[in-house]
Amino acid sequence: MAAYRLQKRCDEEAVFVVEGPKMAAEAIASGLAIRAVCATAEWLSAHADGMVAEETFEVSPAELERLSNFKTPNQVWMLLERKVGSEKWEMRSGLTLALDKIQDPGNMGTMLRTADWFGVRHVVCSRDTVSCYNPKVVQASMGAVFRTKVDYVDLPEWLSACGMPVYGASLQGKPIAAQNTGIAREVVLLIGNESRGISKEAMAQVTDPVLIPNVGGTAESLNASVAAGILMNYLLWNNYNIKKEEQR
Amino acid sequence: MAAYRLQKRCDEEAVFVVEGPKMAAEAIASGLAIRAVCATAEWLSAHADGMVAEETFEVSPAELERLSNFKTPNQVWMLLERKVGSEKWEMRSGLTLALDKIQDPGNMGTMLRTADWFGVRHVVCSRDTVSCYNPKVVQASMGAVFRTKVDYVDLPEWLSACGMPVYGASLQGKPIAAQNTGIAREVVLLIGNESRGISKEAMAQVTDPVLIPNVGGTAESLNASVAAGILMNYLLWNNYNIKKEEQR
Repeated sequence: MAAYRLQKRCDEEAVFVVEGPKMAAEAIASGLAIRAVCATAEWLSAHADGMVAEETFEVSPAELERLSNFKTPNQVWMLLERKVGSEKWEMRSGLTLALDKIQDPGNMGTMLRTADWFGVRHVVCSRDTVSCYNPKVVQASMGAVFRTKVDYVDLPEWLSACGMPVYGASLQGKPIAAQNTGIAREVVLLIGNESRGISKEAMAQVTDPVLIPNVGGTAESLNASVAAGILMNYLLWNNYNIKKEEQR
Repeated sequence: MAAYRLQKRCDEEAVFVVEGPKMAAEAIASGLAIRAVCATAEWLSAHADGMVAEETFEVSPAELERLSNFKTPNQVWMLLERKVGSEKWEMRSGLTLALDKIQDPGNMGTMLRTADWFGVRHVVCSRDTVSCYNPKVVQASMGAVFRTKVDYVDLPEWLSACGMPVYGASLQGKPIAAQNTGIAREVVLLIGNESRGISKEAMAQVTDPVLIPNVGGTAESLNASVAAGILMNYLLWNNYNIKKEEQR
């Protein structure tokens, strides 16, 4: 099982690893096929009933440590089959998140978690964005990876064909304003690479470059996942207000 | 020098470590006293002129690796003396960020970076919040730690005495609205622990519990540093608009 520490092996077999009781519970709830479970006797005795797995192994803490991607392995390691493309996805929000060459697994996972919070169900990534099945992405997503459709595409081509306004986070953009009227319900938010920002090819497809005003600040930039959070919140306020009106 | 990998040793001597050319440049610009520099011959020859350090050592990449807190050490390792309390700090924005038991160094560093972006110059932390001189905090802050006053205090006591409205991020709070009129210019934003939220003692001092509306989302919560970013942006919009008016 230790071979699955290699991302390449996981990619080839279209599987991915989750670790720890919290993520294991999300994995069981997701309904994805469980290829294998390696867990402590304690965890297994508490969860054997609610779980269907191809193979189950009771392991010692030392064996778990050899398998784990983390410094402090936690009771359970699970190998899951990836989602297949034919599933239906409910689009609960008009926003699509597009990621251009995001490299840091923590940022990627955090952006999936934020998207999940805001009801964004579709994330479109350039092919060189970090895999959503990277163990650190899965962990930082806090289960969002189970609830989000993540596609890897030729991003400039996808943006050009999507037929929606494309808001791009850019230090050369127009400051976002307190009133965000006039934003369409169906939009794309594009976030660029942590150090280089949005690539030239993707930027050519941006209809609305936007900047988060920095008042009197001195930092060069915001963390990509923080900028993504602020802009998702900004772009979705209209939808939220419309929804509130509809519920009255 | 490897002894300074221990946080305890750094605390005792009131020093901290920064690594890599980008942070080293920030450190030199900050004017803080440089206790020691360990760097490759290449880095030293490029930077020897602009720098005053008590001790300078030329090291090999292998030696740098033994010193480093990171998997991929990068040219330069530097030991700096911490800021002393008597300095004057310019308060450029009316917002003070308060952190209650933040544990993750990445979150802490990212929040300092976001505060720096928004011109927030004062961060007040509970005594059990992770040290702003933790190497991973310093790195994630992208230099913000050099430009921000970070105090560790009895937080409930400080909040009770500060004389400002205290906005606290809480899943039980009132949803923030698209219009944020009526927010004072001088406010405190309180962010709680990553898994347990704001402690009972600190919550007792919150005047305005606030929630980021989640539209149709399914995630249990937002990452602490993302929530902090969205709420800083929200609370500072008034200030930004007032500033723009004043500049006309």
